Amino acid sequence: MDLELITVGTELLLGHTVDTNGAELGRALAAAGIRVVRRTSIPDEEAAIRDAVAEALRRSGAVLTTGGLGPTRDDVTKKVVAELFGAPLQFDEAIWERLLERFRRLGRPPAPSNRSQAEVPRGATVLPNRWGTAPGLWLEGAPGLAILLPGVPTEMRNLLHHEVLPRLAARGGGRVVRSRVVRTTGIAESALAERLAGVEPLVAPLSLAYLPGLAGVDLRLTAWRLPPDEAERRLDAAAALLRERGGEFVYGADDDDLAALVLAEARRRGWKLAVAESCTGGLLGGRITAVPGSSDVFVGGVIAYDNRVKLDELEVGAAVLAAHGAVSEPVALAMARGVARRYRTELALAITGVAGPAGGTPEKPVGTVWYAAAMEDTAVARRYVFPGTRDEVRARAAQAALFLLYRLLRGGASG
Amino acid sequence: MDLELITVGTELLLGHTVDTNGAELGRALAAAGIRVVRRTSIPDEEAAIRDAVAEALRRSGAVLTTGGLGPTRDDVTKKVVAELFGAPLQFDEAIWERLLERFRRLGRPPAPSNRSQAEVPRGATVLPNRWGTAPGLWLEGAPGLAILLPGVPTEMRNLLHHEVLPRLAARGGGRVVRSRVVRTTGIAESALAERLAGVEPLVAPLSLAYLPGLAGVDLRLTAWRLPPDEAERRLDAAAALLRERGGEFVYGADDDDLAALVLAEARRRGWKLAVAESCTGGLLGGRITAVPGSSDVFVGGVIAYDNRVKLDELEVGAAVLAAHGAVSEPVALAMARGVARRYRTELALAITGVAGPAGGTPEKPVGTVWYAAAMEDTAVARRYVFPGTRDEVRARAAQAALFLLYRLLRGGASG
Repeated sequence: MDLELITVGTELLLGHTVDTNGAELGRALAAAGIRVVRRTSIPDEEAAIRDAVAEALRRSGAVLTTGGLGPTRDDVTKKVVAELFGAPLQFDEAIWERLLERFRRLGRPPAPSNRSQAEVPRGATVLPNRWGTAPGLWLEGAPGLAILLPGVPTEMRNLLHHEVLPRLAARGGGRVVRSRVVRTTGIAESALAERLAGVEPLVAPLSLAYLPGLAGVDLRLTAWRLPPDEAERRLDAAAALLRERGGEFVYGADDDDLAALVLAEARRRGWKLAVAESCTGGLLGGRITAVPGSSDVFVGGVIAYDNRVKLDELEVGAAVLAAHGAVSEPVALAMARGVARRYRTELALAITGVAGPAGGTPEKPVGTVWYAAAMEDTAVARRYVFPGTRDEVRARAAQAALFLLYRLLRGGASG
Repeated sequence: MDLELITVGTELLLGHTVDTNGAELGRALAAAGIRVVRRTSIPDEEAAIRDAVAEALRRSGAVLTTGGLGPTRDDVTKKVVAELFGAPLQFDEAIWERLLERFRRLGRPPAPSNRSQAEVPRGATVLPNRWGTAPGLWLEGAPGLAILLPGVPTEMRNLLHHEVLPRLAARGGGRVVRSRVVRTTGIAESALAERLAGVEPLVAPLSLAYLPGLAGVDLRLTAWRLPPDEAERRLDAAAALLRERGGEFVYGADDDDLAALVLAEARRRGWKLAVAESCTGGLLGGRITAVPGSSDVFVGGVIAYDNRVKLDELEVGAAVLAAHGAVSEPVALAMARGVARRYRTELALAITGVAGPAGGTPEKPVGTVWYAAAMEDTAVARRYVFPGTRDEVRARAAQAALFLLYRLLRGGASG
């Protein structure tokens, strides 16, 4: 089945909020065999919501909206959709009771405005929201199917998985939309396209897309509306072909995260990991500890932002620092070796660079980063000038450092 | 003037890419007085692109697209828009020369597929792309105005600021769309709405929106198409009213980042800051060092993920750790004091918690975090059970810790 997404919120159009709900819904719906054919963001305005929902229903017969169900005055989605379906709003005592109970549990009284959240279009199915105050709604009628979810990501996500997907799964008709991603890093999009020249006809009828991002270039294969077995079989074969052609630049599949792969490889050997970070200031540690269960491998590290910390805590020699500068091969190597020694770990990563926007020189322009990986008695360092903003340089540097350690662990970066 | 955004890319609908371009364009265009009235995401398919662009031009007369200008086979935006404008594609030698030069500089040959990037619809203005290979395009004709930008964020951003905004600014007609955000944290949306009850008529004709996020609840005031002076005057007055009503929970305006405010306050006093992080694993340091120029205040810190690091590096007493557990008030306080002593700083922050998904107990459920702030001889700690996923708990904890130090610096959290 086809479905359109409509995300409601003036903040989305003004750009003060990034539409992460849209992406999350896309992933979950595709996995359930539902094709999202369009996503539209519109302001919190009755006329705009009415037009967009009516068009989407006309075009695709089914629409899922997020946002505009809250207690404040700018929340009007429910009212507008109720009108489109000719279903007057009715106060629902059961919802109101659940709301009151929730507020009792939180130890505070409801606001008078919360009352409107207990109003339901006649004939709609209520999707109970145990994670917030606005229940979701499911309306079916002459205009088609409309599913209304709140815009708060946690509430949207829980309602989606507990209430919406089970109801939609029954409608898939035995065909699914499935994707497989082959993840590469350390190679530019056009160079990768060269390596993969002529591959499209070989993977057809699957589609192939190049997705460059801060972690590298992802290759996404998609099977559109195939029976599940055939989709899996074709995706397996096509992914194997891409892995072969991509060679050393391929590190994983789907949601594989390099940090998790590095942790898994270290765990297999019973090794510990520490980090020493200058320009990334903790981002690399933050990324490693984003992986649940990282604590059995990752012990911690030193954020050596100031050079004094590099000297005092990591025993980077003052002479080395003076001779080569903080952004240099010997300092990166000394940081990695220093933190491994101090934290008694077999593995260590270090990053030192010029993240910008200031601080660049002709020899070390903004984006210049030295990163090093240590594994027992081996230590290697690499230099790269990363493009982009301060945030982008730092994110790319963290990924490059993880890739260096990953290859070291797999025996491919000792040269 | 009104304009619609169309972001092209199957990956956007499948949710493998979050549409950050849409948000960034929204902000930049609103600031230039252009109202984005709708944003649509569509797959890389000729028919879908044609329908969406044609509808948008019919409805609003102007459209800006991103994506689908790359060298790979799934990039078809240019072709489709050229057809809509009745403008055949022509090979442009000048673009091709610039492309060849770019490849020479990078030290690698162009791919044959890059040739298509030098094709231009007849009559279109070329927006030179010095940051990548696909130039932007500006088409005006009977269907209206179409602006085509590449989807790679850095290229989109640079073309927007250097080529598109200057051309659009001339069309604003002396009226602007301007927003002002009043940022709050440490208070729930409905409680904040109670404090602000009755404020909407007082700020009219400005609109007011509540935007809950990981940093707290933002309040956004928007002036729609007013002369610049009037917009500023009304926004100033309304923001002052919201600040007064929001009281202690208001910490800033617009893009103010709590980390930057803490750094500025510390800088004013000539003080240094260090961090000790357990469950956040470096995220807090990463967030602080995301602020350009943070190096004059922030010296670094200890990622004390493993308890051994808390003992060895931060001198948290083994008896304290055994008696209270790692997630406790005494440990949070000892971590903050320990890192301040070791790194010789006047200020320190520490975070220790259960980020989940595993590790929760009835006494310390997932989301439980103790965070502490130290300022010279004072140290205070707070406990909170943050809702959400592992990532959300960690981001909220970092914000709460920064808010605690902010209030301490401003004299409001010693109790």
